[in-house]
Amino acid sequence: MATTERAAEQGEPSAEVAGAGTDSRPREGPAPATGVEEKLAELEDRWRRAVADLDNVRKRQATELRREVEAERAKVAAAWLPVLDNLELALAHAEADPSAIVQGVRAIREQAVRLLAGLGYPRDDETGVRFDPNRHEVVAAVEDPATEPNTVTHVVRPGYGTDRHRLRPAAVAVSKSQG
Amino acid sequence: MATTERAAEQGEPSAEVAGAGTDSRPREGPAPATGVEEKLAELEDRWRRAVADLDNVRKRQATELRREVEAERAKVAAAWLPVLDNLELALAHAEADPSAIVQGVRAIREQAVRLLAGLGYPRDDETGVRFDPNRHEVVAAVEDPATEPNTVTHVVRPGYGTDRHRLRPAAVAVSKSQG
Repeated sequence: MATTERAAEQGEPSAEVAGAGTDSRPREGPAPATGVEEKLAELEDRWRRAVADLDNVRKRQATELRREVEAERAKVAAAWLPVLDNLELALAHAEADPSAIVQGVRAIREQAVRLLAGLGYPRDDETGVRFDPNRHEVVAAVEDPATEPNTVTHVVRPGYGTDRHRLRPAAVAVSKSQG
Repeated sequence: MATTERAAEQGEPSAEVAGAGTDSRPREGPAPATGVEEKLAELEDRWRRAVADLDNVRKRQATELRREVEAERAKVAAAWLPVLDNLELALAHAEADPSAIVQGVRAIREQAVRLLAGLGYPRDDETGVRFDPNRHEVVAAVEDPATEPNTVTHVVRPGYGTDRHRLRPAAVAVSKSQG
């Protein structure tokens, strides 16, 4: 069935190939054969083997894909466990020393930012740069005579990622041209 | 080459198949053919098409795998951004009202626990259950005459996940049998 779909997708006239699994093999056991018949049998054998390989490769592909995606989910989720553990430690310490929690939470925030950078999603909270629609989402336009128009004056919510892999753009305020 | 490796892996005698790409086609242009020759040409064509399909499927597999794994990484990482945003909000509020941060961090801890459960990794911090080497890692053995031996008396560090997908076991204290 997969073979038929793929053939249709490519517009190839290989409908007969799809039925291969149900054909009975034309030769049974060794028989005295002419050169042409031998060649015919050999070619048919090669073809059947290639079709069977194709089927196996497709099945393995689906299994491998599921396994790799699950492994990636576990890897990324597990990377966050220390952040959660530290939140709980900070809360436990807060009962004994309430003033320590702010410092603890600041450290956890930094830990989370480093973690995201390590996964390939560096923080983007730069101001003073030119507005770039790929990395910025404008949430406010401000009048600022001291600033060149279209400059990021303030980051409301930082972005994460790169041009190739962006989790979200930075939400920013941008200077508008003076009317 | 990929075909040769795979054939070797399965112990199939398909070394000749691997060389297919370098063979010149035995028929060139339309020629008056006997029934056997037509059949031969058709079979050869089917076989070559199946081998080409096999090659395409393998190439697409690598690309698709990379794409899906990257998408999963982005999905899981992005799910944690609200946790980080809330940490930053809690810190911002802490400056105005230091007492509010403990409540805020508690809520963020709950948010992180729910997030992990949503990804398929529920929290495991149950006490009073029988020790299970699959979900528990013993870090202490305690004498507790009131408790059945081999019972989890205290969770030192919660575990996350299920039998099928476990991020880490729970680190626990277990009651030992009375000597």
